[in-house]
Amino acid sequence: MSGRITVLRLGHRPLRDKRITTHVCLVARAFGADEVVLTERDDALERNIRGVVKRFGGDFALRIDPRSHKRILADFPGMVAHLTMYGEPYAAAVPRLRDARDLLVVVGAEKVPGDLYDLADVNLAVGNQPHSEVAALAVLLHALRPEALSKPVQGELRIEPAARGKVVKPGAP
Amino acid sequence: MSGRITVLRLGHRPLRDKRITTHVCLVARAFGADEVVLTERDDALERNIRGVVKRFGGDFALRIDPRSHKRILADFPGMVAHLTMYGEPYAAAVPRLRDARDLLVVVGAEKVPGDLYDLADVNLAVGNQPHSEVAALAVLLHALRPEALSKPVQGELRIEPAARGKVVKPGAP
Repeated sequence: MSGRITVLRLGHRPLRDKRITTHVCLVARAFGADEVVLTERDDALERNIRGVVKRFGGDFALRIDPRSHKRILADFPGMVAHLTMYGEPYAAAVPRLRDARDLLVVVGAEKVPGDLYDLADVNLAVGNQPHSEVAALAVLLHALRPEALSKPVQGELRIEPAARGKVVKPGAP
Repeated sequence: MSGRITVLRLGHRPLRDKRITTHVCLVARAFGADEVVLTERDDALERNIRGVVKRFGGDFALRIDPRSHKRILADFPGMVAHLTMYGEPYAAAVPRLRDARDLLVVVGAEKVPGDLYDLADVNLAVGNQPHSEVAALAVLLHALRPEALSKPVQGELRIEPAARGKVVKPGAP
């Protein structure tokens, strides 16, 4: 899809969710989202993600928006897709999402506000089983932007695919 | 694929990795792996995963194997695929993995033993960018067993896909 993809991570609690939210941000970046929005500051997380962007490149941004999820969703000019194990199968919605000019993908932590199901344009499930918002986000983004995983990005470092061991080169090709 | 898929989670540290390893286990179950093997006991994690299997069903197992990764890999009768951001593109290897009778997918925590790259039959990357072993596992399993996400399983509870809100019913259809 050609519009912007923003990921809104709701309910991040710095101590408890640090590592899962880090994975959400890194997955968003690697699978082709343009930015992640958190509603709470988390200096350590922001430093960490900005460090990855600096080293590995790309235009990905982590942004803090302290407004309520209600306000953020109401002001979003594009389509809002909430990822939840209670939703409808994501695959059928992919063509519609691809046609959206801009897309806001909402992923919650363990608890999400109950009104989210009504505020979102669509509630989508990557399987109706409990698993992981990290995995659900990866699978959805991969369906929307399959090219993202292999697109070269300009950064300080570049990993070269290798049959054995680690091959890290400077810069991008 | 028709053989068994086992996921070996290496380097789990109960305090630090509890939530990520929980996501690894739930993703393994939801995306069609048959079992996860940990090399360290973690009672809370085991209780949690067994509770999900009881409520939501399926044959999925969490098993503790205290042997070294070297021994586990050497004794495994099928193909060993190590997921790493340094590896070769996973997509090209999918047909070969599907043909394997049994498959051991190895996912490490932040640090993995250096000999793993040589002990594995293949080192595979889901994109050569830093992201998440949870996401990498989901995308690989989804390529191997795309039917797993929508396969009904017999458990105490069943989530029914819904456009709005949460619909949870007893049992499986």
